[in-house]
Amino acid sequence: MQDLRDEIRAFIEERAWQRFHSPKNLAMALSVEASEIVEHFQWVTEEESRNLPREKLAEVRQEIGDVMIYLAELADKLGVDPVEAARAKVEINKRKYPAALVRGKASKYTDYLR
Amino acid sequence: MQDLRDEIRAFIEERAWQRFHSPKNLAMALSVEASEIVEHFQWVTEEESRNLPREKLAEVRQEIGDVMIYLAELADKLGVDPVEAARAKVEINKRKYPAALVRGKASKYTDYLR
Amino acid sequence: MQDLRDEIRAFIEERAWQRFHSPKNLAMALSVEASEIVEHFQWVTEEESRNLPREKLAEVRQEIGDVMIYLAELADKLGVDPVEAARAKVEINKRKYPAALVRGKASKYTDYLR
Amino acid sequence: MQDLRDEIRAFIEERAWQRFHSPKNLAMALSVEASEIVEHFQWVTEEESRNLPREKLAEVRQEIGDVMIYLAELADKLGVDPVEAARAKVEINKRKYPAALVRGKASKYTDYLR
Repeated sequence: MQDLRDEIRAFIEERAWQRFHSPKNLAMALSVEASEIVEHFQWVTEEESRNLPREKLAEVRQEIGDVMIYLAELADKLGVDPVEAARAKVEINKRKYPAALVRGKASKYTDYLR
Repeated sequence: MQDLRDEIRAFIEERAWQRFHSPKNLAMALSVEASEIVEHFQWVTEEESRNLPREKLAEVRQEIGDVMIYLAELADKLGVDPVEAARAKVEINKRKYPAALVRGKASKYTDYLR
Repeated sequence: MQDLRDEIRAFIEERAWQRFHSPKNLAMALSVEASEIVEHFQWVTEEESRNLPREKLAEVRQEIGDVMIYLAELADKLGVDPVEAARAKVEINKRKYPAALVRGKASKYTDYLR
Repeated sequence: MQDLRDEIRAFIEERAWQRFHSPKNLAMALSVEASEIVEHFQWVTEEESRNLPREKLAEVRQEIGDVMIYLAELADKLGVDPVEAARAKVEINKRKYPAALVRGKASKYTDYLR
């Protein structure tokens, strides 16, 4: 992950793109790339999404790479470690969604706080 | 990253949420979380986005965690390593956007292939 | 639609929100609201999505309202009539996706141009 | 708007695409199209977004058409009139964001309910 961060920093500096890459703009780019993943799945069934053809999987892998790039860059700009942030959020989610209460149910956590 | 992946797997299994977590649904959840980052930036200027107040930064950090969680889980379901996918994409981007051509310009790469 | 446009204009002016409502920011807000619709559908099956409970339908109706508001406002700022733009796009789509070629298939139109 | 709805219905039926067009899938397509609008604005300044070049405006107009199409179709499938839903939401927003309290401020409404 540190290597990725450094490669992204070098890539941006070599192109003098820092002034375009404000956190606001990076958040936009991140969501655009996330939607490009969604586009691959919008007309397939859930079952089909579990068994992507090899060619489609290769395309989705590239989109996952794009999301990871912008997430790493946005996090870097904000001084956040995305993997640490994720692990901290998993701990929060464990308390928000107690296994005993939500087992096998997909409702939003607020349903359990009513 | 491997630790994160394992923690997510355990979290999902303890809640019996596997059947909800098809790649199709995870792609949707990923884009929803990416938009929750965007929501924090939609009314601020680019300049303000470079200097978030501490409280807002803490909220954005949690949203970054959410995006990282769904990205890691989606990638895991598809057998993709997200950091490897990102590094491979940086290499592709180096060829798509030659520094000499795009330096200081934000146009989409297709503009350079015309 | 003209009434809606005028109501939105009055709403924004009364709150002196014009300077926040640049097309860039409105595009962000539009995508955030579209994702709030997606959030309602991310863990339900396609079948369930065709039969929403009354309470959930009322929530989705409000999110549809939010998307329509930001779409109307963005279009107004850009001097575009969204319904006219949609009807023009349907005409384009008729040529891009000839019924004889795509009947019953969900592939992206580029698949048919290869 | 009724004409648009009828044109979309005919377009979908002629292509036998009804089975792909569940509300879940239409919500996904809607958010993907909203992101295609965002993509046009992600690297431009707010000022530039208020003065799009003619060619770019023509592209954004097509994306607005796409969002309007999927919004109209999703709303139709759910038995919702999108313009009525928007006007009802403007009324709700008038109460949520009293002009006297929020004038010239962009904070989220919850800030005013604390």
